[in-house]
Amino acid sequence: MATPSTKPTPLLKDELDIVIPTIRNLDFLEMWRPFFEPYHLIIVQDGDPSKTIKVPDGFDYELYNRNDINRILGPKASCISFKDSACRCFGYMVSKKKYIVTIDDDCFVAKDPSGKEINALEQHIKNLLSPSTPLFFNTLYDPYREGADFVRGYPFSLREGVHTAVSHGLWLNIPDYDAPTQLVKPRERNTRYVDAVLTVPKGTLFPMCGMNLAFDRELIGPAMYFGLMGDGQPIGRYDDMWAGWCMKVICDHMGWGVKTGLPYIWHSKASNPFVNLKKEYKGIYWQEELIPFFQSCVLPKECTTVQQCYLELAKQVKTKLSKVDPYFDKLAEAMVTWIEAWDELNSAGQNSEKKPNAAAK
Amino acid sequence: MATPSTKPTPLLKDELDIVIPTIRNLDFLEMWRPFFEPYHLIIVQDGDPSKTIKVPDGFDYELYNRNDINRILGPKASCISFKDSACRCFGYMVSKKKYIVTIDDDCFVAKDPSGKEINALEQHIKNLLSPSTPLFFNTLYDPYREGADFVRGYPFSLREGVHTAVSHGLWLNIPDYDAPTQLVKPRERNTRYVDAVLTVPKGTLFPMCGMNLAFDRELIGPAMYFGLMGDGQPIGRYDDMWAGWCMKVICDHMGWGVKTGLPYIWHSKASNPFVNLKKEYKGIYWQEELIPFFQSCVLPKECTTVQQCYLELAKQVKTKLSKVDPYFDKLAEAMVTWIEAWDELNSAGQNSEKKPNAAAK
Repeated sequence: MATPSTKPTPLLKDELDIVIPTIRNLDFLEMWRPFFEPYHLIIVQDGDPSKTIKVPDGFDYELYNRNDINRILGPKASCISFKDSACRCFGYMVSKKKYIVTIDDDCFVAKDPSGKEINALEQHIKNLLSPSTPLFFNTLYDPYREGADFVRGYPFSLREGVHTAVSHGLWLNIPDYDAPTQLVKPRERNTRYVDAVLTVPKGTLFPMCGMNLAFDRELIGPAMYFGLMGDGQPIGRYDDMWAGWCMKVICDHMGWGVKTGLPYIWHSKASNPFVNLKKEYKGIYWQEELIPFFQSCVLPKECTTVQQCYLELAKQVKTKLSKVDPYFDKLAEAMVTWIEAWDELNSAGQNSEKKPNAAAK
Repeated sequence: MATPSTKPTPLLKDELDIVIPTIRNLDFLEMWRPFFEPYHLIIVQDGDPSKTIKVPDGFDYELYNRNDINRILGPKASCISFKDSACRCFGYMVSKKKYIVTIDDDCFVAKDPSGKEINALEQHIKNLLSPSTPLFFNTLYDPYREGADFVRGYPFSLREGVHTAVSHGLWLNIPDYDAPTQLVKPRERNTRYVDAVLTVPKGTLFPMCGMNLAFDRELIGPAMYFGLMGDGQPIGRYDDMWAGWCMKVICDHMGWGVKTGLPYIWHSKASNPFVNLKKEYKGIYWQEELIPFFQSCVLPKECTTVQQCYLELAKQVKTKLSKVDPYFDKLAEAMVTWIEAWDELNSAGQNSEKKPNAAAK
C-alpha cells in the first residue's frame, strides 16, 4: 500500500513547463537558476508589450507579450486578462507539457528548518506523482510519504487513492493575506514551517493561491482559467481564487485530488494594501455569494470531460451569478471563449501547426 | 478577527477532568505528574475488579471498577464494555465537568523539536477554547493561532468560526496503525512533528483515536459512547472509531467543529499485532459498509440536541446496519441504553444525588 518510495523523484524534464506571469526582477531568475535550468520556461508579460524582458543566458524560454496573445488567439484573446498576472493562464494553454508549475516573480527559494534550500519543483512533482485521498481524512497527513501510512480505521478500499490534479504550495515570510488583513497586521510574517502535505477533502473548498502552484495540465488544464481581471475589469486579485473554486468543483466531480502544504517558497514582499483594497473590494462582498454558489454546485453525470464540466459551470455562472453583477455575464462568456481557444490550440493533430510563434529564444 | 491571543491559556482547573482507562504502569502517572496534578482524575479499571490500582500520593482521583459500574448503572451497565479500554466512556458519564481529556496509559509526555516537554493539556485547552472552521479550508491551518490568520479569499462571513467540540491529538514514536499495517511495517516510527492544528471539514469523516483526545463534554459528551467492545463482543479496537464517526456526523449536523493535529504525546509501545488482528478483523471488513453509512447519514432538522441526534443515529444503525451483522442490533440497543444512563446521571437537579460513590481517594 503506502510503501515509501525510496526512488529519487524524477525530474520530468520533458514533461513540465514553468509558467511565470511577467518578470519584474531578474534576481528572481538568478535565484531559481539551479532549479529552473533543466526546464522550459513560458513567460507571459502582463503589461506594456513595448517593454522587453531581458532573460539572462542559460534559460530555455519562450516569452509572450500582449501582441503575441492577440496574434495567436485573434478575437478569442479577449478571454485573457491584460495588465494582470491572470494572463499567466495563456501560458497553460500554449504549453504542450503534461505538468505545469507556476511561480510568481516575487517568490524566492525558501529554506527548511535545517537551513537547506527547498527544491519546490521536486516537492510539487512528488505531490503530483503520488495519489490523493479526498474521500476520507488521514490524521497523519500524506499517507504515501516516507515514514507515514494510513492510520487505524482508514478504510482499506480507499487506500489506493485517486489521481492528483493539483499541488498547492505555501509561503514563508509574507503570507497571502487580503488587503483588510494586510492593513490590520502590517508586520505579520509567516515563520511556521508545517512539514505536511494533505489532500483537501472532497466537497471542501479552499482559497487557491497562484503564487506557488503546480498541476497536471493533461488532467485539469482546461479548468485552470484565471478569469477576467486587471485592465478594464471591475476586480483584481481573484484570478487564482476563481480558478481554484472552479477547479475544485470539477476535481470533486471527476474524482481527482487536490493537495496543499509543502513546498514552501519565500514570498519576498507584500504588495501595496491600498492598491490591493481597490482591486479586491468588490470581490470581498461578491465572494459571500460565490462561495455558496460553488458549495452547492452540482455537475450532471453526463459531464465526463473537463471541458464539458467547465462549459456547464459557465452556464450555471450565467444563470445564477449574473444577478450578483453584470460582470459575471461577461465572465461566463469568457469562460466559454477560453475553452474554445484551449481546444483550438490543443486539439489532436493541430498541435504542431498551432504551436504559436512566440518571441522565443 | 483572528487577533492572536497573548493571554496565557487558562488552566480550567475546576472545569476539566482527565479520564484514564485503567493504569497498568504507574510510571505513566509519575511522568505526567506536573501536568496532571492540578486536575481531578477519573480512572476506569477495565479488567478484574479484585485487582487494585495503587495511585501514588498527590493525585486527586476517583477510581471505578466493574463492581462500581454495575452498582451505579444497574441493568444499564450492559452498555459499558468489559475488559476493554472502551470502558473509559463510563468516566465521561460520571464526570461533572465541562471538559474531558482522555489519555492512554502507554502514552507519555512528548518533546517538541526544540526538546521542550509538550504540555498536551494546555494545547487541548487552546484547541477547545478557540473556534473551528469546518465550512471552508484555511491553507495556513488554524487561523486563530498566533502568527496566523485567514488567507486571501477566505469569506469574511465565516471568520467568526464555530464552537469547537473535539480536539484530537497525535502521537510521536509508535503510530496508531491497524494490525495489518503493524505486521507489514513493524519498525515504522512516527518522527515527524507537524506543527499544525486544523479543522476537519464539514462532511468529512476521519479516524478518531482515543489515545490522546479532548472534548467539550457539555457540548458533545452524549455522543462520545465507545460502543460494545472486548469481553463477549465480536470486535475490539473500534471503540474510538465508532465514537468518532457518530460524533462527527452529529457535530456536522449541530454546526460544531472538530480539530486534529497538536498536541503530540509519546506513544511508548505498540500493542501486539497478532492480538490486534484478532480483535480487528471483523471491523476491517465491516468498516467498508460503516463508512458509506456514516457518509450518507442525514439527521432530520427536528433533532436539536445531541441526545436526539444520537437516538436517531441508533435507529438508523438498527435499520441499515443490522444486515451487516446481528452485532449492530445489539449495538443500536446499547446506544439507546447509553443515552438513558447518561440522562439519568446528568439530568438537572439529580447531579448531586446521583454522584456515584466510587472507591475515591
